[in-house]
Amino acid sequence: MKDVPSLDRHLEPELKARIDRKAKPLGSLGRVEELAVQLSLITQSLNPAFAKAAVVIFAGDHGIVEEGVAAYPPEVSAAIAQMVLDDVAGANIAARAVNADVFLVDAGLKTRLAPHPRLFDRAIGEGTRNFAREPAMTSAQVTEALEAGAEIAAELSDRGYRILALGEIGIGNSSSAALVAHAVSGLPLDSLVGQGAGAPAGGMSHKLRVLQAAYERAAPFDGGAGILAEFGGFELAMLAGAMIGAANSRLITIVDGFIATAAACAAISLQPNLRHYLIFAHLSPESGHGYILEWLRGKPLLDLGMRLGEGTGAALAIPVVRMAGGLLRDMADLPGAHPEKDG
Amino acid sequence: MKDVPSLDRHLEPELKARIDRKAKPLGSLGRVEELAVQLSLITQSLNPAFAKAAVVIFAGDHGIVEEGVAAYPPEVSAAIAQMVLDDVAGANIAARAVNADVFLVDAGLKTRLAPHPRLFDRAIGEGTRNFAREPAMTSAQVTEALEAGAEIAAELSDRGYRILALGEIGIGNSSSAALVAHAVSGLPLDSLVGQGAGAPAGGMSHKLRVLQAAYERAAPFDGGAGILAEFGGFELAMLAGAMIGAANSRLITIVDGFIATAAACAAISLQPNLRHYLIFAHLSPESGHGYILEWLRGKPLLDLGMRLGEGTGAALAIPVVRMAGGLLRDMADLPGAHPEKDG
Repeated sequence: MKDVPSLDRHLEPELKARIDRKAKPLGSLGRVEELAVQLSLITQSLNPAFAKAAVVIFAGDHGIVEEGVAAYPPEVSAAIAQMVLDDVAGANIAARAVNADVFLVDAGLKTRLAPHPRLFDRAIGEGTRNFAREPAMTSAQVTEALEAGAEIAAELSDRGYRILALGEIGIGNSSSAALVAHAVSGLPLDSLVGQGAGAPAGGMSHKLRVLQAAYERAAPFDGGAGILAEFGGFELAMLAGAMIGAANSRLITIVDGFIATAAACAAISLQPNLRHYLIFAHLSPESGHGYILEWLRGKPLLDLGMRLGEGTGAALAIPVVRMAGGLLRDMADLPGAHPEKDG
Repeated sequence: MKDVPSLDRHLEPELKARIDRKAKPLGSLGRVEELAVQLSLITQSLNPAFAKAAVVIFAGDHGIVEEGVAAYPPEVSAAIAQMVLDDVAGANIAARAVNADVFLVDAGLKTRLAPHPRLFDRAIGEGTRNFAREPAMTSAQVTEALEAGAEIAAELSDRGYRILALGEIGIGNSSSAALVAHAVSGLPLDSLVGQGAGAPAGGMSHKLRVLQAAYERAAPFDGGAGILAEFGGFELAMLAGAMIGAANSRLITIVDGFIATAAACAAISLQPNLRHYLIFAHLSPESGHGYILEWLRGKPLLDLGMRLGEGTGAALAIPVVRMAGGLLRDMADLPGAHPEKDG
């Protein structure tokens, strides 16, 4: 995988001056102005265009569900993934509300999905192994997942998409995400363990005990790739690869909630420059999300109490990104605001 | 004007049950679920459709600017309004980002605008009178403005719009808004006086003194219509009329920032039932906005540090409304979630 270059900031003074000449009180578009600068630096363009946006949902299953850490049986992952393909899931209603296309990636579900034009079939296995007992994935699987993610980002770039809103589906993946975030950040594990999709079958204190024991089994770790191998999942690793690939293709990446942000932690531990290419969509009520965002110094755009996953929060941030692009590209200057006219 | 009926809540239990059967963890769409209930009650439909949305911007000028309370000369109001018609203002970039149409209403600018297909020319005067010395408008003008706003809402309803995102343009209107909100709510005036579009020509303490004196000149008041007559402006009164008309047409009204929320205060003081028909788009950093929202028990959807006006914040809330509609209309149920299948 290509390294993510550090974000080239040479356009920043010109950008800020351009934004200050627009027909509005100084600073009056708030976060949209900050975002406009970031988008322009990512794309290295003073007039970035963001017409085509994709909501890309990575789905995988998790061996750890054997331990009673999830509220739903693993079959639910594929059932929800099929609903995404059938255009009737939360992801689809969010994408339709913002005029984006939806793609599903089978990163490693237990149940096979029938071929579909909006399905990337990149399954690495039928769910990860149970990381209470052994590593969730092999190193080779981590590499394969990262590369598959980067390839999907590059393919969507070739198809004209300029914004990728990245989300996930995977019963059990709040357990993976908590451990990945804990191992990367060092934040206390109990601050990162929440209920996920619902109260765990074995109760919250059971979930925390299982994850604490898994951490102790696996520590110490061999960097971000080693952490992904230990705790998975396939969809987290592929999400991390997609973030890295999107940055290398100069796409705008919008990171959804707790799980996707944990994947971002892993991706940043692999590619530290990636941090400045990511846009954090929203703050989830899943208890650990705020802590990870704070650790990443990521300021979420939205706070709507959403914790569905499936890229629903990331999708709702797409219009804010499009508006930031429009600010640079389409908004008039104040009369007389051009320095050459003042001079 | 027709009275706004109290919001009929008989569908609420059925709605909540429907939302809980959807393919998602209970409550996991947060504010979007609350909004779905409200939208359904407003439209009295279990499957509300929100394809067509309009950003409607009411523009007016204010005699009070003679007192040095604004940062810009009044000519700027019409210049920005013209940019809206030319499709290059903040309103346009926000509307394009959310796939909404933009309409401008001349409620009473000092400068005439040329006819335009997206212009409602309903000017009531060439700016209001200086309310430091006399009432901003006559009672007849208030009535005319309220009726014009309601007629515009009804016309947009006839043209198929189901969401109206309401905003404004008007140099000096943060002074009008502060006094209208103060007179309606009784909140302390100094908590409602902020810098508006920029530092007032005469300074902030001058602005507060001018408004305090105007309040003392005018008090006591004859209800919401009397308050609008004293402090204007034409665009605030027309906004209030549009909110009332939209509720009577069962349209979804999204209220923009500080000025539009002050207009909502006036409208609610005229039609108390209106309160439950309004959706508050965002929290502006204009200092008084949070206080008014709290007084109205309005929970803004977004908080992006935006204080441009022109309906920009209201526009960005449109996708959230559309997603809430999609939740009811298009999202699948969990398998086995239908009570008739369980029984």
